[in-house]
Amino acid sequence: MTGSPPTKSSILPSGGGAALMDPSDVLILLLDHQSGLFQTVRDIPVADLRRNVEMIAKLATLLDIPVITTASEPSGSNGPLTPEIHQHAPHAVYVPRKGEVNAWDNEDFVAQVRSHGRQTLVIAGVWTSVCVMFPALDAREAGFKVYAVIDASGDPSEMASRTSLARFVQGGVKPTSTNALLSELHRTWARPEAADLAQLYGLVAPNYAAVIESYQRAQEAARTA
Amino acid sequence: MTGSPPTKSSILPSGGGAALMDPSDVLILLLDHQSGLFQTVRDIPVADLRRNVEMIAKLATLLDIPVITTASEPSGSNGPLTPEIHQHAPHAVYVPRKGEVNAWDNEDFVAQVRSHGRQTLVIAGVWTSVCVMFPALDAREAGFKVYAVIDASGDPSEMASRTSLARFVQGGVKPTSTNALLSELHRTWARPEAADLAQLYGLVAPNYAAVIESYQRAQEAARTA
Amino acid sequence: MTGSPPTKSSILPSGGGAALMDPSDVLILLLDHQSGLFQTVRDIPVADLRRNVEMIAKLATLLDIPVITTASEPSGSNGPLTPEIHQHAPHAVYVPRKGEVNAWDNEDFVAQVRSHGRQTLVIAGVWTSVCVMFPALDAREAGFKVYAVIDASGDPSEMASRTSLARFVQGGVKPTSTNALLSELHRTWARPEAADLAQLYGLVAPNYAAVIESYQRAQEAARTA
Amino acid sequence: MTGSPPTKSSILPSGGGAALMDPSDVLILLLDHQSGLFQTVRDIPVADLRRNVEMIAKLATLLDIPVITTASEPSGSNGPLTPEIHQHAPHAVYVPRKGEVNAWDNEDFVAQVRSHGRQTLVIAGVWTSVCVMFPALDAREAGFKVYAVIDASGDPSEMASRTSLARFVQGGVKPTSTNALLSELHRTWARPEAADLAQLYGLVAPNYAAVIESYQRAQEAARTA
Amino acid sequence: MTGSPPTKSSILPSGGGAALMDPSDVLILLLDHQSGLFQTVRDIPVADLRRNVEMIAKLATLLDIPVITTASEPSGSNGPLTPEIHQHAPHAVYVPRKGEVNAWDNEDFVAQVRSHGRQTLVIAGVWTSVCVMFPALDAREAGFKVYAVIDASGDPSEMASRTSLARFVQGGVKPTSTNALLSELHRTWARPEAADLAQLYGLVAPNYAAVIESYQRAQEAARTA
Amino acid sequence: MTGSPPTKSSILPSGGGAALMDPSDVLILLLDHQSGLFQTVRDIPVADLRRNVEMIAKLATLLDIPVITTASEPSGSNGPLTPEIHQHAPHAVYVPRKGEVNAWDNEDFVAQVRSHGRQTLVIAGVWTSVCVMFPALDAREAGFKVYAVIDASGDPSEMASRTSLARFVQGGVKPTSTNALLSELHRTWARPEAADLAQLYGLVAPNYAAVIESYQRAQEAARTA
Amino acid sequence: MTGSPPTKSSILPSGGGAALMDPSDVLILLLDHQSGLFQTVRDIPVADLRRNVEMIAKLATLLDIPVITTASEPSGSNGPLTPEIHQHAPHAVYVPRKGEVNAWDNEDFVAQVRSHGRQTLVIAGVWTSVCVMFPALDAREAGFKVYAVIDASGDPSEMASRTSLARFVQGGVKPTSTNALLSELHRTWARPEAADLAQLYGLVAPNYAAVIESYQRAQEAARTA
Amino acid sequence: MTGSPPTKSSILPSGGGAALMDPSDVLILLLDHQSGLFQTVRDIPVADLRRNVEMIAKLATLLDIPVITTASEPSGSNGPLTPEIHQHAPHAVYVPRKGEVNAWDNEDFVAQVRSHGRQTLVIAGVWTSVCVMFPALDAREAGFKVYAVIDASGDPSEMASRTSLARFVQGGVKPTSTNALLSELHRTWARPEAADLAQLYGLVAPNYAAVIESYQRAQEAARTA
Repeated sequence: MTGSPPTKSSILPSGGGAALMDPSDVLILLLDHQSGLFQTVRDIPVADLRRNVEMIAKLATLLDIPVITTASEPSGSNGPLTPEIHQHAPHAVYVPRKGEVNAWDNEDFVAQVRSHGRQTLVIAGVWTSVCVMFPALDAREAGFKVYAVIDASGDPSEMASRTSLARFVQGGVKPTSTNALLSELHRTWARPEAADLAQLYGLVAPNYAAVIESYQRAQEAARTA
Repeated sequence: MTGSPPTKSSILPSGGGAALMDPSDVLILLLDHQSGLFQTVRDIPVADLRRNVEMIAKLATLLDIPVITTASEPSGSNGPLTPEIHQHAPHAVYVPRKGEVNAWDNEDFVAQVRSHGRQTLVIAGVWTSVCVMFPALDAREAGFKVYAVIDASGDPSEMASRTSLARFVQGGVKPTSTNALLSELHRTWARPEAADLAQLYGLVAPNYAAVIESYQRAQEAARTA
Repeated sequence: MTGSPPTKSSILPSGGGAALMDPSDVLILLLDHQSGLFQTVRDIPVADLRRNVEMIAKLATLLDIPVITTASEPSGSNGPLTPEIHQHAPHAVYVPRKGEVNAWDNEDFVAQVRSHGRQTLVIAGVWTSVCVMFPALDAREAGFKVYAVIDASGDPSEMASRTSLARFVQGGVKPTSTNALLSELHRTWARPEAADLAQLYGLVAPNYAAVIESYQRAQEAARTA
Repeated sequence: MTGSPPTKSSILPSGGGAALMDPSDVLILLLDHQSGLFQTVRDIPVADLRRNVEMIAKLATLLDIPVITTASEPSGSNGPLTPEIHQHAPHAVYVPRKGEVNAWDNEDFVAQVRSHGRQTLVIAGVWTSVCVMFPALDAREAGFKVYAVIDASGDPSEMASRTSLARFVQGGVKPTSTNALLSELHRTWARPEAADLAQLYGLVAPNYAAVIESYQRAQEAARTA
Repeated sequence: MTGSPPTKSSILPSGGGAALMDPSDVLILLLDHQSGLFQTVRDIPVADLRRNVEMIAKLATLLDIPVITTASEPSGSNGPLTPEIHQHAPHAVYVPRKGEVNAWDNEDFVAQVRSHGRQTLVIAGVWTSVCVMFPALDAREAGFKVYAVIDASGDPSEMASRTSLARFVQGGVKPTSTNALLSELHRTWARPEAADLAQLYGLVAPNYAAVIESYQRAQEAARTA
Repeated sequence: MTGSPPTKSSILPSGGGAALMDPSDVLILLLDHQSGLFQTVRDIPVADLRRNVEMIAKLATLLDIPVITTASEPSGSNGPLTPEIHQHAPHAVYVPRKGEVNAWDNEDFVAQVRSHGRQTLVIAGVWTSVCVMFPALDAREAGFKVYAVIDASGDPSEMASRTSLARFVQGGVKPTSTNALLSELHRTWARPEAADLAQLYGLVAPNYAAVIESYQRAQEAARTA
Repeated sequence: MTGSPPTKSSILPSGGGAALMDPSDVLILLLDHQSGLFQTVRDIPVADLRRNVEMIAKLATLLDIPVITTASEPSGSNGPLTPEIHQHAPHAVYVPRKGEVNAWDNEDFVAQVRSHGRQTLVIAGVWTSVCVMFPALDAREAGFKVYAVIDASGDPSEMASRTSLARFVQGGVKPTSTNALLSELHRTWARPEAADLAQLYGLVAPNYAAVIESYQRAQEAARTA
Repeated sequence: MTGSPPTKSSILPSGGGAALMDPSDVLILLLDHQSGLFQTVRDIPVADLRRNVEMIAKLATLLDIPVITTASEPSGSNGPLTPEIHQHAPHAVYVPRKGEVNAWDNEDFVAQVRSHGRQTLVIAGVWTSVCVMFPALDAREAGFKVYAVIDASGDPSEMASRTSLARFVQGGVKPTSTNALLSELHRTWARPEAADLAQLYGLVAPNYAAVIESYQRAQEAARTA
């Protein structure tokens, strides 16, 4: 097992966090979330995909986690990057590529990744099987810990999606979901950003927004009864 | 066939609109869209349901179509009305009920409906099989033309949903979808609200939002090339 | 349209109920809900089917609606009637048949039906396409108003189920779902049985039970805060 | 409603059968069940389709119901008729066609149909939307009562299948399923063929075969205990 | 029932074709099959949709059936018409619209339709619920016989698709599928275009293409053995 | 392979149990099964989830297996713990947390776990990807054998659910299902609790309850025949 | 990787078979395929399950591969073993158990397994997650090579089925399908049993039976043309 | 992890490609893509399967990658190889087999594979679980790096397909999808074949073809505006 070394600062006295990502070591890579590519995604509705990406952008801003974005050629038919990312994560750094399909083939991109000195890469992108898979495998080969956020990414078929998941596991890339990423970075409600974090749960699980609405109205009704 | 009489003002010289709703005769009824009931919906994801309801609220405001909302008991466990409706359709009139499950059992509600003098009722609500079905059938019995917006409503199972659709058809209620409602009221791009209407299409078909983004970027790229 | 005559007592001054079933005219027929036949049902999970049938039994008892049950041969391989029915509806009358597949072929059964003097038959059973379909069509031919409760019944495949729904509509039998039946008979919260009826909603929509639990705890929390 | 006239011999004193098919008036048409066409069926697994067709052949033989088969060109790429039909229904009459897609376009076929003097046609075939639909609609136009057995037929997609079901209903053709056909012709267990009929239920609902096996073993165990 | 009058030339002495479309009376309308709208289709894979449309174009050319196409605004974000149509049906007439969502609102379009003097309209388009539905209902109101080709059209969700099918049936529009349209116009193999028609079956049912390949090789093997 | 050492007492002379859990070493952890979170579960119907959890509570009581429950904040919007657990497992110990998302981050919880001196942890909870995943991975890092009961847990989407399963396998957590847990702890019918255990199978496989009903009636019929 | 040693007799000079099962070393275990348990299977239609089991019985007889069957208690509610097994594999040895859920807990069973001196166990049974999983894991712990035939086994839900597949892979049990088992034991058409083997392919892939029918007719047509 | 050695020429200075296939070391094996076997495929529509295979053939030609095809017996009922392969990859070498199910059992085939001196095998075929699985496992045993292209292959059921994916991962075969293969070999748009490669993306993701059409028209519109 590829456990975390016992000395990282994110491990609590209880042992909590020993096998989880250290938020202070995380770097988020959002790759090729472009409007033209969105049309080819068939393993998740594009509305859900965009809401998940939006959540990650907001989360990164809230918790001050660095973000790198990239696109092969935003003036081409693949279309522009979804505007939500830089809108909600203004600190994100965009690295243009020179035609490379695999972002890890681009030296500027890898240099930007290495400049942060963080060893835990959280990657999402379109397509999962290409734009996430290739840099994920190469980054792992280079010694990084790598997470692939499956539902903030998209593949052109269910069959390709299942295949990607299997290849990630086989290649030592840890698969995760947007809601799990939120919780793994959130970690505890006993923190100043709690109220803001609470809002984000309604994005990864839309029914939760209604749970909160019901709760607040029930309490209000009890107080005014 | 229950065709429209040939003299209504919405019929064009081409005959266009003869079998469609006359926008000037439409009254929208949004029934029991409450956060607690949303949790029981199983025929449509709640995020899609809310986005569709939000679209209808915006559309009604844009085209100045009257809206009536109601809830059986918003302080109860069914929860509050989804706030999007009155937020985006501030002209909507809320009619409280006195415990009646069927809104058409409530005299205030029916009086409010009749006060508009419109004969075409467009109804959505949760559950489809109850909160939409009962007033839809009673309204039709009372002589109204009635449309049920299936995907701005929700039922507790797929099986209940298919059953509701069949019962509507059998009972002379016209089933429609949110995107069709938008188009049927929109009618033509040669109108002053066109730009605002264009925004609404991205709500009923999220991929369309990305289509527009791609289009604008492609044109921009062509102009600057 | 086969509307209700305007003079029935269940029609309110608002016109509410004009197109709906008159609870005082309803007779419930639960046909061949037998353990052996349950194994052949493939259009609804058997746990859901039994919970829906249990709800109908409880509802009939609560609202004092007569119930007739029957089975072709309970000592045979089709198995015994599901015990929930007579347990929760002790007033139900069981009519044994003499081998007829179609309950309407059995004179005792039809006599029992006619003895109640009610014209609105609500039928559920296994299989939908046979045990519900045949008596439903014959009863309608005999002048009854007939409802088929699709999800308190079961068919051996999804394809058979969709076919049954279409044949009901074509034959003038009104399709409904268990949750709609509950609401159509319930009609209003302003009645003495309201608290008991509230319990039944958690059976037809299991998420609703959790909605109530959350609501009660939220109010308790608000009061003790 | 197109009810049966009250005088047909299949109507029991109870009124049973008034809205159902009269077995003595039934003629079964099995159209173009060919091995090549089976490969194009996508709305039902071909194993289920063939088992359903086999059941109908056996049922027809057991109850002495006439059967007509036909194929456009069995030496062509559509392949030979499935051998189960004539094997299990040796009395079936095969009518070759002269290239007509619609069997009702072929005079020999229609003459063969009319020669039986029966007015109730039960039709199955591949494709549902063509080989069943066209003669079904034309036969109904010619005054026959027509049933389409949806799951003893096959269409090239789920979408085509749903469309066919809707077109049948709209055109006055009664949709049914193989299990319902068995029960509608079977009618009562109080008949000499009961034991043979019991075997057929295991074909239309494979779980039922296991129900019988369990039942017999349980009884045997009880007797030897 | 809206049967065909018994005197139309397409009715054979057998009665065949009495309830079917008369090929010599058919006019095909292909509405708004545009690349941008294709991205919003969610009830059929776009590859299948385009292959079906391509088949209709080829079929129309082969059988010399007139075709009208139209688009709201091909320079806009909805994108250009799919090029397959005019490529495979060079005789198709394109009618530009002036912003009308409903083609039947456009006088040029309706005039073009009427100019052919044909009463049977076969319509396909994107979205089914709008671009097909509206002109279909209006054309039927104007006295045309109307068919909607469900799988040569597309809707933004499965729910919208099922709703459209129900609304067509309710409104007297006949739903059909691409493979049924091919067969209904094809009618018999005893015609000079038979070989060309055979090719088209591989488009509406891709497995059929492999059936033919197997057949030809099997025959070749038999002959050379 | 991470097999069990050959000396544990649960290994039979046949070698049976060598690779399975030792019931005497099992500690069950039921984490965050709260009514508000239930609303967000989309990979299993909430009725099935609750029935599975109820079974585990009853099983633990029957076999005297210790249970620990916990919730982040039961007065908050996540709602109260499902009452079935402590009702059916009165010996369960509830450990309140102080806002930690990951139960393993809470020292009281880990201390309670360690106090039992058992090394095999069976974990279920909502969400699978968070409330089960994080403590499961951390517990494994701490040297425990860990099982995740997938269908007594819930995730907000099918995609998240498939991702969780893959991450468990990759991380050395053994995935299991509620029915398998029952059988793995049950082990043999030759034990005094057999009759009580038999009841539990009807909860994990509702069709099995009907199998038993059929069996008993068949035997009764055989004896009285 | 757990490759086969290079010296086993089943490895061809080409290296073929090096990573595959050696047919001469295979022992087939068919566990608890009982009629009562079949009713609880929800991850595969019971007709398909039984056809797959029947194929394995026939294959074992044809290739002279030993088979062991077992059931916990065939007189109990789980029902009798499916009769197809011993009917088509008369050489199969039945080992009764004494109440053990896990066949590997039963010394007679393990002794019977060991008596064959074969190291490659191919296991199928109902439930997959229990009756296959437990002996599979224990057998692997005991040093056997173990294959689990997923679609000749059954689990009570899709979720349990996916979980079982993951647990097999994690535990070193090789998952396979019935069609793959047939091919892996079949190995070459250049063997005397080829004609009989050909028949079996129509059982694991029912469309293949129609492929053969079409082929034979096409050749016959070519020869007689 | 089985990473690539750091010295292969396909690794860029950035480290890109270190964990990916080296295009100059790739040999493509297309096994048993025969028209008769296509009829048995049930995990992917045959139109999609053939389009994916066609793409691989075109890609191999464009990038000059060697291809080997084979079939067990093309004159038999399995049918001829799909003609697209040799049509679009005229350089492909066909190796007839002598009845072996597993291509790796055939010495000519293995010799042909070894003659290319390439160590990275990309395999697709029908069935996935047999024709791809067996040679894939044997080739890996023989020291090759092996990729299985899941969606350019086909299995007779979804269950078999999921099982195959798991067995590949367990056996060290890397699963991939057709779109990922295209991108992994394509690698960069800065190459002379870029325009031709662009065409291929429309085959693996049909929506992408429409994306390009929209893009070109939008640019054209911008330029002529």
